[in-house]
Amino acid sequence: MIGRLNHVAIAVPNLESAVALYRDMLGAEVSDSQSLPEHGVRLVFVDLPNTRIELMEPLGEKSPIAAFLEKNGRGGIHHICYEVKDIAISSAELVAKGARVLGDGKPRKGAHGNPVLFLHPADFLGTLVELEEVG
Amino acid sequence: MIGRLNHVAIAVPNLESAVALYRDMLGAEVSDSQSLPEHGVRLVFVDLPNTRIELMEPLGEKSPIAAFLEKNGRGGIHHICYEVKDIAISSAELVAKGARVLGDGKPRKGAHGNPVLFLHPADFLGTLVELEEVG
Repeated sequence: MIGRLNHVAIAVPNLESAVALYRDMLGAEVSDSQSLPEHGVRLVFVDLPNTRIELMEPLGEKSPIAAFLEKNGRGGIHHICYEVKDIAISSAELVAKGARVLGDGKPRKGAHGNPVLFLHPADFLGTLVELEEVG
Repeated sequence: MIGRLNHVAIAVPNLESAVALYRDMLGAEVSDSQSLPEHGVRLVFVDLPNTRIELMEPLGEKSPIAAFLEKNGRGGIHHICYEVKDIAISSAELVAKGARVLGDGKPRKGAHGNPVLFLHPADFLGTLVELEEVG
């Protein structure tokens, strides 16, 4: 079912500091920042040869990563995202096997414009798993 | 400096359950398990098309992931590993820029037989970062 690791998302308290760390300290290529108000984050992509790291800062009062950053003041790995070919089929299969999809259970449009959903961390080894449909 | 994302390591309380989850629930290819007493873990590799996930269970009384699992009973993402071409050069550059290398500061032989070192999570957005020299 799962294909490529699409990205690893790291929640950070300050995006500019995080960019400096990855660009200047670790020598990686980092994109310009994008604000995604509908997702409650401002983010950049760290482009690695085989995948990317997303650095996300909370945006707005209802940011879904605000609570995470209250617990993890310096930041931390927030989720990992695996690609699937057909998110409706994958979702139905996972639910049939007992996994829980967060929210209303339906895919929504993700940060890259593709359908995504999140799986309950308690069902996946304490890790928040995003599935993204990449055709 | 950093190249490919070599792996994401997830600490798990029970390796067989974790294998079943990735193999049967998520439909991924999972290797046979390996015991690495010198690293205090027993692990499998989940082979994705572009990188791999390591699922690690504590092995022995001094396992370096035991404390992590005491705090995170269901498991959780323990570290991410980036590849570098020359670990001695990378290490010297990072230390010169103020980053802290864990342990005695010297690379040691990692789980794949290559030189590795770990960087202090407090210096890297709350994430434990492993660097692995891949020639």
